[in-house]
Amino acid sequence: MNRTGVDIDRGNACSACAFEWAARTFSCREGRLGRPIPLEQGGFANVLAVNGLRVATSSDGIGTKAELAERTGVYDSLGFDLVAMVVDDLSAVGCEPVALSNVLDVDRPDPAVVDRLMSGLHDAATQARVVVTGGEIAELGRRVGGFGNGMRFNWSATGLGIFADGASPIDGRSIEVDDAILSLRSAGFRCNGFTRIRGVLSAAYGEAWHEEKRSDGTPWGTALLTPSLIYSPVLLQIAESGIRPTGVAHITGGGIPGNLVRVLRACGLGADLEDLFAPHPMMCEIQDLGSIDDAEAYRRWNMGNGMLLAVRPGDLDCALRTIAAAGYEAKRVGQIVREPRISLRPWCPGASRLEFPTQPDKRR
Amino acid sequence: MNRTGVDIDRGNACSACAFEWAARTFSCREGRLGRPIPLEQGGFANVLAVNGLRVATSSDGIGTKAELAERTGVYDSLGFDLVAMVVDDLSAVGCEPVALSNVLDVDRPDPAVVDRLMSGLHDAATQARVVVTGGEIAELGRRVGGFGNGMRFNWSATGLGIFADGASPIDGRSIEVDDAILSLRSAGFRCNGFTRIRGVLSAAYGEAWHEEKRSDGTPWGTALLTPSLIYSPVLLQIAESGIRPTGVAHITGGGIPGNLVRVLRACGLGADLEDLFAPHPMMCEIQDLGSIDDAEAYRRWNMGNGMLLAVRPGDLDCALRTIAAAGYEAKRVGQIVREPRISLRPWCPGASRLEFPTQPDKRR
Repeated sequence: MNRTGVDIDRGNACSACAFEWAARTFSCREGRLGRPIPLEQGGFANVLAVNGLRVATSSDGIGTKAELAERTGVYDSLGFDLVAMVVDDLSAVGCEPVALSNVLDVDRPDPAVVDRLMSGLHDAATQARVVVTGGEIAELGRRVGGFGNGMRFNWSATGLGIFADGASPIDGRSIEVDDAILSLRSAGFRCNGFTRIRGVLSAAYGEAWHEEKRSDGTPWGTALLTPSLIYSPVLLQIAESGIRPTGVAHITGGGIPGNLVRVLRACGLGADLEDLFAPHPMMCEIQDLGSIDDAEAYRRWNMGNGMLLAVRPGDLDCALRTIAAAGYEAKRVGQIVREPRISLRPWCPGASRLEFPTQPDKRR
Repeated sequence: MNRTGVDIDRGNACSACAFEWAARTFSCREGRLGRPIPLEQGGFANVLAVNGLRVATSSDGIGTKAELAERTGVYDSLGFDLVAMVVDDLSAVGCEPVALSNVLDVDRPDPAVVDRLMSGLHDAATQARVVVTGGEIAELGRRVGGFGNGMRFNWSATGLGIFADGASPIDGRSIEVDDAILSLRSAGFRCNGFTRIRGVLSAAYGEAWHEEKRSDGTPWGTALLTPSLIYSPVLLQIAESGIRPTGVAHITGGGIPGNLVRVLRACGLGADLEDLFAPHPMMCEIQDLGSIDDAEAYRRWNMGNGMLLAVRPGDLDCALRTIAAAGYEAKRVGQIVREPRISLRPWCPGASRLEFPTQPDKRR
């Protein structure tokens, strides 16, 4: 176990085991509607063939970010986190997210809190242009824990995406040396690494850490609750402008090395990232408070870069213009190189370059 | 709040609120792939139009039945419960379940336990002929509670179903007076009403109630863990035999009155249920131990009847033969009548007939 209390090795072993069992189910729809589509490099995406159509599913949740709402009493931004986690994974394989079904586990239902959560989910889903097709609110009593005396809850969702006619999943196979890498700026921590964040802040400030002020005067609780930007609308606009990214990495748990590596393995190449967006000041403050080095920080958090896209060099300008017109911040941050490793220059002046191997993904 | 500790009124208010917010998202895919299909009576099923295809989604979880695995150390049957809850809701609207994506929330991951859970999920998914397309294992620490010192977990899933070419959702609108109602026998409690069950048993036997023996000598923990039968394969076979049920009610939380009522409201008719399958002996024992009357028992548990199907009288024999050939138990248990209420004769000789109104579904 590492210092966060999150047991990464056991977690990886569990994910690998779950994937092995899931893969053994794939043959049961051979010759039928809903056959999983094998990837050329031997694995399977969550993509099914249904007549001439390809559909994708993706599941995720907001993790322990829920505690921030319990601490601050602000519940209407978490819907943006939930939608972002689910639909941006779908966008990263190149499909259009169309629907989302959510599961809200609660200790005891509180209609006022559920109203705020679902209001936020509505706002986020509408922004992402996905319909909320269903939902389950499960009352689980002491099986759901949390902070304080209000409703305690865990929240997850599964999204459904559809590929435009003839489109195949984006999996990184067509990436080439010298493809440009651009980054979509994040607004904050999105939904990953909150266990570590809470550990740092409670060690520094005690149990009521969320009420402590950051250097800019905002309480930590409010700052950490910053909702995730939803990138799927801008990815759709890039596709509509005629540009097909050669690879997309949604920067979630594992940070840039943990997520970009999956894309790079498909093409056997590497990435030089020379000019990433700077981490948000609150990320640097957490690093300082917890004496967390850059290597760990970039492995755990998005550090200001919520999504990375590889595009052909000739597509870069048009992609950047499309993103800017959609109101998102992006820039060229690096390029694809022949050496199979991720080389990353942290933002701080004088910081050492970080290198991460593109080792095999343990799920395969 | 009622005697179970489960707050039904607050739960209903939350579900209604969530549905209202979800319904407001439906227009956001107007004119696009994935448009929700409105039902004729004014609501929406979880059914989307995608080109010429109709797809359905459904989310559910195993609820507090997870505690039985924590108490007994037997983890490989819960996959059958999870698959049954999700795919049988899809089957009940008349589509073919094709895929399932699951979310496993854990306090701390234990690879050995995850292996058993996922092994069971594989076996159940293969039986139901659905692929497990994805999964998320979320390590949530103290946000997940449970029994004992092993891995604590909550487990939910979202299924994807597809309608055969030209088929429309089964919603009960075509039900007519004198349609036969047949019941598919359940194997036990499936996944509903476990909070009440635990309350009765812990009051009767104390904290280690799962080790106490039932009248037939089996421990309560083992008996209650009886896996749910998965009905979707037999519903597919009924469809393949050329029979289209006019209405299907998957008997989950709310029992026969709570689930059959949704189907009956669509046609404005009622049901006489004269010859239901008897409840399992363990259900009667729980009733006795907790002094639970029939009205409550039939509102809370399936009482031996896991799914009810309305079919044209001329289709009954063929449907029953198809079900028997598939290895499931079924029989004719009643019929559709003009009076808009559910009239139900409990199994016990001499028991009073129960009547339930077909009041408006609060979700609409």
